[in-house]
Amino acid sequence: MATVGILGGGQLGLMLAESLDRLGQGVVVLEKDPDSPCAQRRSNVLRAGADDEAALKDFFSRVDVATFDSENTPAAPLRPWAQQLAPSLRVLELTQDRAKEKTFLRDGGFRTVRFEVVPVGADVKAAARKFGLPCIAKSVLGGYDGKGQHRLLTPAGIEALPPEAPGGWVLEEVLELESEVSCLVARDAKSAVSFPIFENLHAHHILDLTVIPARIDPVLQDEARQVADGIARALGLVGLLTVEFFIGTGRDGERRLYVNELAPRTHNSGHVTRQACTVSQFDALARILAGIPVVQPEVHRGAWCMGQLLGEVWLAQGRTGGALDLTAWRDFPDVVDVYVYGKREARATRKMGHFVVHADTPERALERAVLFRDRLRGRAL
Amino acid sequence: MATVGILGGGQLGLMLAESLDRLGQGVVVLEKDPDSPCAQRRSNVLRAGADDEAALKDFFSRVDVATFDSENTPAAPLRPWAQQLAPSLRVLELTQDRAKEKTFLRDGGFRTVRFEVVPVGADVKAAARKFGLPCIAKSVLGGYDGKGQHRLLTPAGIEALPPEAPGGWVLEEVLELESEVSCLVARDAKSAVSFPIFENLHAHHILDLTVIPARIDPVLQDEARQVADGIARALGLVGLLTVEFFIGTGRDGERRLYVNELAPRTHNSGHVTRQACTVSQFDALARILAGIPVVQPEVHRGAWCMGQLLGEVWLAQGRTGGALDLTAWRDFPDVVDVYVYGKREARATRKMGHFVVHADTPERALERAVLFRDRLRGRAL
Repeated sequence: MATVGILGGGQLGLMLAESLDRLGQGVVVLEKDPDSPCAQRRSNVLRAGADDEAALKDFFSRVDVATFDSENTPAAPLRPWAQQLAPSLRVLELTQDRAKEKTFLRDGGFRTVRFEVVPVGADVKAAARKFGLPCIAKSVLGGYDGKGQHRLLTPAGIEALPPEAPGGWVLEEVLELESEVSCLVARDAKSAVSFPIFENLHAHHILDLTVIPARIDPVLQDEARQVADGIARALGLVGLLTVEFFIGTGRDGERRLYVNELAPRTHNSGHVTRQACTVSQFDALARILAGIPVVQPEVHRGAWCMGQLLGEVWLAQGRTGGALDLTAWRDFPDVVDVYVYGKREARATRKMGHFVVHADTPERALERAVLFRDRLRGRAL
Repeated sequence: MATVGILGGGQLGLMLAESLDRLGQGVVVLEKDPDSPCAQRRSNVLRAGADDEAALKDFFSRVDVATFDSENTPAAPLRPWAQQLAPSLRVLELTQDRAKEKTFLRDGGFRTVRFEVVPVGADVKAAARKFGLPCIAKSVLGGYDGKGQHRLLTPAGIEALPPEAPGGWVLEEVLELESEVSCLVARDAKSAVSFPIFENLHAHHILDLTVIPARIDPVLQDEARQVADGIARALGLVGLLTVEFFIGTGRDGERRLYVNELAPRTHNSGHVTRQACTVSQFDALARILAGIPVVQPEVHRGAWCMGQLLGEVWLAQGRTGGALDLTAWRDFPDVVDVYVYGKREARATRKMGHFVVHADTPERALERAVLFRDRLRGRAL
């Protein structure tokens, strides 16, 4: 029996572990947080951080191959075990550094919005004035869910910018945004498969709803799949890659598809694959890690919507964590899954769970998802 | 957070535990065998037998409600905690005793084959001669997968019968068997839902293949659902019940539906619900245990076949347990799931895993399942 390691024991790690279980693989998880989904539910969880060298040595001695559930996993401590990593250390280093990632995309001929890298120590305010308004200033390292991002609309916004950000800054052009989509590609040495395009709706920079089929021009959907596939190939990817795209209009007045960012891992937008597709994102990655050929996922009939459940839903129910009052589910037979991650402490913006709705059309699926969540919050309708 | 206990940590317990996880419930499993799926993969597994009084006391002090993954769970030691059991202790006692179960069915007006109970100490051979050949002698207690069953075709068969069986004997008429189906009902205090009828094919008394839609007269399918629902109601069931049926012709020359036996739990034939239905059997039971309303499962389009993977497949690959060589999967994109239970020791007739095929027709699904399993065994085609 081969053993697969997972660096990180959040919900993405947990669902991957369950897919690996089903393939008969051994699974070892490295995760410090006792409140994490893996630490709460699974055996074989080593309780240490991914920067703990002694723990890493123990971890890698137990596993044949390892992956990570976040691109923010520290890369330097993993160097001695680079041979055992999938995706590769290079992919991890590239995707955790916004400047390197954007430059890689531009150099590879993959369309991004206009951007400029502002290195540590350089004058970001001067650079922003020169770059032009409106723009977005993003930290090079460590950002997720909109953290470390500043939307600059006026000269006063530029002046209010902190002088430094982790790893420096990237300035990006602001699009007249029409929609956001993501495309997942799973790839091993012999084959690559891609999932249907997901349409993503965000609230406060956090993924809120994902719907398939995406309500997007099929030509752009094809383009997104081709671009995602090309990026995976250019990276020599072994594993799973999520490519997030913007669809919008830039200063040139053209409506186009732009690569926003890369995540070399399963993605919250891919939760919907557990019900909507014959192969889930977790199953696809598990197969690659286990050396089992991947097959092209098929999509079940109808439309599907994934709704994220943040801690605010627990707080609205007067709960501090754990389970949720799901009585309202009785009136929603079209909610085909609710997945609570089991985190003990509910914070307003913490991802605590998700659910999936099945309907005839994307509009109906979205509408029902919003209604269901409102009912969970106890709001009158 | 409510906590649910599971007596037994086999594959059925494991899949139920994962469904409970997703609802945010705490889960505690009582299971002695360190080789069991739950002991290998999960946290919160108490390692003791279901007849260990001290362990039971500890277990029930930790859980709000508990269920069991086998009707052969010893009932007597559970009496002090009967209030916490779902299904009830009465249902467990009834379904683990073939004589009580058959009598309950007959008294309730549910059609079974003609049978006779032969109590402990009575002369089973004389009873069999009087009952008439051909017949089947089954032990009252402890049988599963055909264990404790003797098919009596000739007077010599009667003479070869052991004089005693656990709990005595039940003699049953032999049908001219046409097919076997099962129907799962999930029921709580407020509502009941039933799954589509599964058509089951056995090999050597062990469930081998399950296919939906069942290739059975729709009138008989409706009757099976109504009978299953009626039995669940007569039992006052809170939980999940599997009703196994025979379709065949008895001595009266009529082709009819007969109740074969009951299992007050999820069932191996129900594995197919994980892919084929919007709600799996495990999700349905988990909702009931968590006090969340159940909804009627819908079936995805097409046909589905579950194939059991017994230890013989591992042995054919020269493996003693653990993972399976799944290289052949590459040629079967219609195999939408392979689930390996993670048992370390493969014995020829031990249930080690299963897989699910999706196809356009039941015939095609069955054909592909048989082909896939043969390929896993490494047989030339």
